[in-house]
Amino acid sequence: MDWLDAVKWDRDGLVPVIAQEVGSNDVLMFAFMNREALAETAASSRAVYWSRSRRRLWRKGEESGHVQQVHEIRLDCDNDVVLLKVTQLGHEPSIACHTGRHACFFQRLDGDMWLTVEPVLKDPERIYK
Amino acid sequence: MDWLDAVKWDRDGLVPVIAQEVGSNDVLMFAFMNREALAETAASSRAVYWSRSRRRLWRKGEESGHVQQVHEIRLDCDNDVVLLKVTQLGHEPSIACHTGRHACFFQRLDGDMWLTVEPVLKDPERIYK
Repeated sequence: MDWLDAVKWDRDGLVPVIAQEVGSNDVLMFAFMNREALAETAASSRAVYWSRSRRRLWRKGEESGHVQQVHEIRLDCDNDVVLLKVTQLGHEPSIACHTGRHACFFQRLDGDMWLTVEPVLKDPERIYK
Repeated sequence: MDWLDAVKWDRDGLVPVIAQEVGSNDVLMFAFMNREALAETAASSRAVYWSRSRRRLWRKGEESGHVQQVHEIRLDCDNDVVLLKVTQLGHEPSIACHTGRHACFFQRLDGDMWLTVEPVLKDPERIYK
């Protein structure tokens, strides 16, 4: 059986993907892949997602330069979630989020408020110029 | 505004949730929450998910004893993914997966095959007895 057929694609033909940074083990971001994106990710060792808003393949870093080098591709117990172990390239310290932050999970619940608790490392206007 | 209203619930009223272990930073599992599950998680500091298969609240550990103590609740840049920082209780070393493994992401792509690369720490028949 094709390894891509082992993945349980959802009703939209997508699978959720978690990108985790090798070394820090930080969870950088969450996105989706379709079959083509996962195949290309495995073949190229560069993270390729499916952009649901733009309805096209999204080669992470294609605009920002913040490419993700993929070291490992993992699948969960139900075959319906993928975990990537990546090196986040393009900036030091690493930036995975389009807001210019290290990771996308920068809002922390504090009582009944979401507080932004991580700094912007590079102005998005300078990332997407 | 209610902090729960800041979350962008999907068309099913759910939000994807990543559970990450404090200390190791390991990604333990992925699941969904509805509004009630997230509210109870925040109030009780114990992870409560929405079981899509059973269509009911799933208080993690209710059968297995493998409860997750929640230290932090984070929200991503698009307000549509939650990250929990947890301590995985109930077994040493910690078990989050229903297969008796530490974490759910135990299948690694190796060439064109998914290999199981993490050991079973406790027989599921002994977990769910």
